[in-house]
Amino acid sequence: MTETIETTHSFKPNFGPEGLIPAIVTDQRSGDVLMFAYMNEMALEETIASGIGHFWSRSRGKLWKKGEESGNLLKVIEMRTDCDQDVVWIAAEVLGDGVACHTGERSCFYRRVVQANRPGGAVLEFADLPQPKTMPAKTTPV
Amino acid sequence: MTETIETTHSFKPNFGPEGLIPAIVTDQRSGDVLMFAYMNEMALEETIASGIGHFWSRSRGKLWKKGEESGNLLKVIEMRTDCDQDVVWIAAEVLGDGVACHTGERSCFYRRVVQANRPGGAVLEFADLPQPKTMPAKTTPV
Repeated sequence: MTETIETTHSFKPNFGPEGLIPAIVTDQRSGDVLMFAYMNEMALEETIASGIGHFWSRSRGKLWKKGEESGNLLKVIEMRTDCDQDVVWIAAEVLGDGVACHTGERSCFYRRVVQANRPGGAVLEFADLPQPKTMPAKTTPV
Repeated sequence: MTETIETTHSFKPNFGPEGLIPAIVTDQRSGDVLMFAYMNEMALEETIASGIGHFWSRSRGKLWKKGEESGNLLKVIEMRTDCDQDVVWIAAEVLGDGVACHTGERSCFYRRVVQANRPGGAVLEFADLPQPKTMPAKTTPV
């Protein structure tokens, strides 16, 4: 069978037109999405080499070691890519205070989208994510 | 306090330069990331109105009701947005065969990125995600 991007064992991340690949970060214990950011090639390489999440800050135009100042580093427990190799998913443990969002929330996704009473309308509702469930830790490092 | 995009109850999704917002879909039971796609305004509205995941197919340039042909529709259990309102996260139940990826895998993220023996090198390893854990179902609909 001809090898395709979907079947290959070669890691060939597709960085897209701006040289960036989307990166989803979830809590390795609860499965909750903690944050979403972009990586350039350097950020991805640093993340793989160090086991600590690095991203590309589009607003600051520079490599961004998440949590470098706050201590809330992202320890990579497992990294995966999707069928097309144009997204990466990191299951992480948040070090320090366990806070992933710059607002001080554990996750950036602290608001639920709920239907409003007008047609097509939706509003946001602040809603904590459930506490981390006791799930067996994944043990395979990057 | 002045209301900001981070503190508002107003849903003001930021669709980005191409009119698209990234959408992360996780399995509402296991927390595993199932797929990643983009929504335009119409896809987001349809998703909220119907409770079934709709996206914008960039390759086909059209609205894409995921699973319309296969029956593997995404039933939205909960939708969230992040601090900047430029990403949406959908916790979903996959209907039909429970398959979210066009390759036939349950999740698009069926390969792990693992370090190779050469400096900076990484390869992919096919690795099933753990079976869905028995977690209490979230009950708040969109």
